Amino acid sequence: MNAFRQAGHSVGRLTPGPRGTVADVPGVRVGHTTIIRGEGNGAVRTGITSVLPPGDLYAEPLPAGAFVLHGHGKAVGLWQLLHLGELETPILLTNTLAVPRCADALITWTLARYPAAKSVNPVVLECNDARLSAIETRPVSEADALAALDGAGEVVVEGCVGAGTGTVTFGFKSGIGTASRAVGSSIVGALALPNMGRREDFRPPPGLHVSSTAGPLGESEDKGSLVVVLATDAPLLPEQLARLARRAALGAARTGAPATTGSGDFFVAFSTGWRIPRGQDRNPVEFIADRSPAMDNLYRAAAEATEEAIYSALLAATPLVGRDGLCLPTLT
Amino acid sequence: MNAFRQAGHSVGRLTPGPRGTVADVPGVRVGHTTIIRGEGNGAVRTGITSVLPPGDLYAEPLPAGAFVLHGHGKAVGLWQLLHLGELETPILLTNTLAVPRCADALITWTLARYPAAKSVNPVVLECNDARLSAIETRPVSEADALAALDGAGEVVVEGCVGAGTGTVTFGFKSGIGTASRAVGSSIVGALALPNMGRREDFRPPPGLHVSSTAGPLGESEDKGSLVVVLATDAPLLPEQLARLARRAALGAARTGAPATTGSGDFFVAFSTGWRIPRGQDRNPVEFIADRSPAMDNLYRAAAEATEEAIYSALLAATPLVGRDGLCLPTLT
Amino acid sequence: MNAFRQAGHSVGRLTPGPRGTVADVPGVRVGHTTIIRGEGNGAVRTGITSVLPPGDLYAEPLPAGAFVLHGHGKAVGLWQLLHLGELETPILLTNTLAVPRCADALITWTLARYPAAKSVNPVVLECNDARLSAIETRPVSEADALAALDGAGEVVVEGCVGAGTGTVTFGFKSGIGTASRAVGSSIVGALALPNMGRREDFRPPPGLHVSSTAGPLGESEDKGSLVVVLATDAPLLPEQLARLARRAALGAARTGAPATTGSGDFFVAFSTGWRIPRGQDRNPVEFIADRSPAMDNLYRAAAEATEEAIYSALLAATPLVGRDGLCLPTLT
Amino acid sequence: MNAFRQAGHSVGRLTPGPRGTVADVPGVRVGHTTIIRGEGNGAVRTGITSVLPPGDLYAEPLPAGAFVLHGHGKAVGLWQLLHLGELETPILLTNTLAVPRCADALITWTLARYPAAKSVNPVVLECNDARLSAIETRPVSEADALAALDGAGEVVVEGCVGAGTGTVTFGFKSGIGTASRAVGSSIVGALALPNMGRREDFRPPPGLHVSSTAGPLGESEDKGSLVVVLATDAPLLPEQLARLARRAALGAARTGAPATTGSGDFFVAFSTGWRIPRGQDRNPVEFIADRSPAMDNLYRAAAEATEEAIYSALLAATPLVGRDGLCLPTLT
Repeated sequence: MNAFRQAGHSVGRLTPGPRGTVADVPGVRVGHTTIIRGEGNGAVRTGITSVLPPGDLYAEPLPAGAFVLHGHGKAVGLWQLLHLGELETPILLTNTLAVPRCADALITWTLARYPAAKSVNPVVLECNDARLSAIETRPVSEADALAALDGAGEVVVEGCVGAGTGTVTFGFKSGIGTASRAVGSSIVGALALPNMGRREDFRPPPGLHVSSTAGPLGESEDKGSLVVVLATDAPLLPEQLARLARRAALGAARTGAPATTGSGDFFVAFSTGWRIPRGQDRNPVEFIADRSPAMDNLYRAAAEATEEAIYSALLAATPLVGRDGLCLPTLT
Repeated sequence: MNAFRQAGHSVGRLTPGPRGTVADVPGVRVGHTTIIRGEGNGAVRTGITSVLPPGDLYAEPLPAGAFVLHGHGKAVGLWQLLHLGELETPILLTNTLAVPRCADALITWTLARYPAAKSVNPVVLECNDARLSAIETRPVSEADALAALDGAGEVVVEGCVGAGTGTVTFGFKSGIGTASRAVGSSIVGALALPNMGRREDFRPPPGLHVSSTAGPLGESEDKGSLVVVLATDAPLLPEQLARLARRAALGAARTGAPATTGSGDFFVAFSTGWRIPRGQDRNPVEFIADRSPAMDNLYRAAAEATEEAIYSALLAATPLVGRDGLCLPTLT
Repeated sequence: MNAFRQAGHSVGRLTPGPRGTVADVPGVRVGHTTIIRGEGNGAVRTGITSVLPPGDLYAEPLPAGAFVLHGHGKAVGLWQLLHLGELETPILLTNTLAVPRCADALITWTLARYPAAKSVNPVVLECNDARLSAIETRPVSEADALAALDGAGEVVVEGCVGAGTGTVTFGFKSGIGTASRAVGSSIVGALALPNMGRREDFRPPPGLHVSSTAGPLGESEDKGSLVVVLATDAPLLPEQLARLARRAALGAARTGAPATTGSGDFFVAFSTGWRIPRGQDRNPVEFIADRSPAMDNLYRAAAEATEEAIYSALLAATPLVGRDGLCLPTLT
Repeated sequence: MNAFRQAGHSVGRLTPGPRGTVADVPGVRVGHTTIIRGEGNGAVRTGITSVLPPGDLYAEPLPAGAFVLHGHGKAVGLWQLLHLGELETPILLTNTLAVPRCADALITWTLARYPAAKSVNPVVLECNDARLSAIETRPVSEADALAALDGAGEVVVEGCVGAGTGTVTFGFKSGIGTASRAVGSSIVGALALPNMGRREDFRPPPGLHVSSTAGPLGESEDKGSLVVVLATDAPLLPEQLARLARRAALGAARTGAPATTGSGDFFVAFSTGWRIPRGQDRNPVEFIADRSPAMDNLYRAAAEATEEAIYSALLAATPLVGRDGLCLPTLT
């Protein structure tokens, strides 16, 4: 179970999946490379998180969609994902200035497996960890990114790891969080990288009492972003997955996410419920009807899993001394 | 003050405007035509609500934007509003099947004032009140719509009036709600017409304890919609107003709005801070810079005002016997 | 064959369907109500054109998509069409100020067939015929709209009929035009209502030589719009139909369509290749794969059919004396 | 003058600027790094093209907009450009797999000038030159990208240089092309990188007669893309620039651009007519009114300049032996 459930909390009205993580969607794996180096002004506290969907992703892409609530961010790969409705590489999360190197690493990773590939659409999302990490030293390498892919597994580690190593949310140290919901025999899982909001914006979960006085970072708390990856095994069309991604924004709003003008709020969703193999002329699918009650609960599941994943990212975080000795409070 | 504040509640961290209504934006007026007729299966419980921005709207349109969270709705006028960035008529809210007649009435209203007009872009939004009202009898007339325009004033009546006469939210009777926030010397006001969500979806405001057992209407509670009109006197560009409208969706999410597949969740925002007169070659404006801290608080104000307006729509509602004798509980 | 082919012209490289009209898509029918009344300043030259897809449209909607190139227009019904991906009523085309009454008529038409319907999403598109018709007298009635629906058939009449009665394109009298293309065993058909462009903008088809001197209406020629309805029997997803609609804009561009700031350029596409019945939990479809060569030719077909339909709208037009005695030249 | 005008051609009805290139917009500079290495299967024919707007771009970004006609491409930087309405780095064009390295180079370039920058939004566009170049060997380095930026000047070289070294259009060798239009005292300039279309799709300019028989590459001619950068000194809002970018797609359509399913058709526009300095609370601008006739001609200028730039890219191309000895015909 995720840190949120382990701490005895609950939120929403749907039931979590068996592990309470995005890996409840069969075959989904998550990996991290955590980079903690140096002290003082040059301290590096950053990393990379990978989300690997199951199967032969480049030969048989998965249906996918996305929603951009506010686009002050450097996400790559979403135009093709949206216009073809396909995901053809794993997804990497990292810091703002490391996006190109992670995208380059995904090309390397794909060409190693498909030497004849002439086109690769890497998908990379990011948050800015500059408050705790010397981002401008650009410490992330291709090898770091490949390691995050190679080390992915079904156990999802939360907290100050991977892309969540140096993030800050509502004035608290945060990190990577995850959650899931079951809807009939389907699962919707979320992996969240929150890095947003002032202390005063925070809407804690029921039963958790937190002071809403000003956070330690002041106006700088307005600078952050939010990135969420949704996975489901429900057979949804790309456009339905884009709508699912919209509901992740609703879940984020419930935690107090302010979507400030400096925020890059990106939500990506994919389905493992069917595939889109290259080289086929026709593609059969039996998708969940939009007007069916099941769809409404999938939408609710996306919002709830996102909400819980953000809370879990806060509860899983541990103290960490960052750049210039800065150490933010943790929620617990 | 709105019903929510009158009941002693508060939410968010920004301060309301002087009256706590959308009419805190100078010159904005609101009117209602309430139609309550008959009993039993033919009972009509519907109406029209008007929002009139100040000034000579057709000759000197106002900058405007919109966001559609989920588009299962019949809103009209938003394409031109989005592609020209202008509002050139008042806004009417009504029931789903009355949209064309209200749009026709706005043409009548405009031609009466501008006989030479050859093009009019009426803006009408709607919610479906079929659970309490015999919507299929189409009881709304052009005269009803014109009356809602003619009767508009600076006192905003909340509750079961106008387009809110027959609406249901989280299994409770709801209605029209309004709220405002002050940001520096600017105001952001919201008028909400919620008609959405199951009892179990409801996230009550702090301090209000409500059972989350199943609502009286069951699955039918998934059928609703949400419409919000935002007004501000801050000088914003049309695209900035579209972004402001996006934050209204965040405020709605905090109340539990589920954005189900049958939901038409439409958010429209206009500014009275400058105008776009016809016949000018150049248009001067001094808009609020996107990167300024003021913008972040305007975004927060849009979310908070919307959240509070929805709560106020619930608290202002009074018992009403609708179609087939159905009478829903009220929150207080 | 359409007027363009009858005159011996051809354009593009794909082959027309058997009749060269939108009705080459099996089951598609088109109807017109033409309203020609009075002379002088009060002369009315307007009408309504209907496009009726086959089958039980409300009980079993068709997949549909749309593209708005420039939204200075009053189209209704497209938000729900886009967010649900469905068409549930016939499509009506009319003049700018008659849109609400035509939408109201589609509600009447649907309720007559489905008395229990509580929600109807009418789809109406428009062009502004004010140069030739006393649009502000609002001559279109519900009965006129219902007549256009009732009179629909498989023979598509082109020229100065229906919504094309009072339109002007490139300084010439134009009207309704139609065309089709065959792609394998599939058909893509287009029905166009052009009302746009200066004489100098016109790019005539190969072999047709037209003076590009200034058109008779001067700057007023910048005021128009363009509306196109695409039909196909190829099994496409809603999002694929939205992309097909984008290619209609490319075909329009080839005729010289300028998409001026006053233009409402709306493109709607539906497929008869499968249906989305209400009340189903799962919806099977075997859609054409995006990466298949067939898709590229469907895209080409949409552009070519639109291009040809616009040319045919010009070639089919006949002299007509409009408001204040104005009589525009025709292309032939 | 560009290659198209030098060859005595003309198209459209507006007048070119003094040089007939994108650099007619004062201060705009263009640079190229051309990489031609090896023969046979490992032959590299690729490069980088830079577009540098005038002034202190990171401290005082320029207003910008974009349009994605079909998103099967790897463009980066457009989400932030669209949601903030700003361009804060130069624009680079390159091959598909070199996008991340060029983005990384733009970060390097920016940090060299603004060491305190914690966030950089590089804008990179691409076409796939795999038919003539061993793209999978990933020959582009950061140094190559920086050289394209450093070497930029006011003389715009067309043809098989920079990102256009290995491109193919309508079955002909193509390259970089450019053109401009004057509208009153304003200029709209275009730089085009076409890499699209079958021979049979080609719509040659008036007076140029080309066989429309099948092109030498067959179905592979459907695989390409199109990238266009528009610059103007007219003071336009970001949203108006996005609309200007839409008209570039119309110009492309007139040359026969098919927008196939494998195509990444990206159009970016920026204005040098005003700036958006960081650290300001209010931003004054006197923008061109949407309803003014000047706007319609700016739209026309965007379409015409794009159309001519594509033709010029074909006319400027020279014979080049590429991968596996492949040598495509040139238009002249």
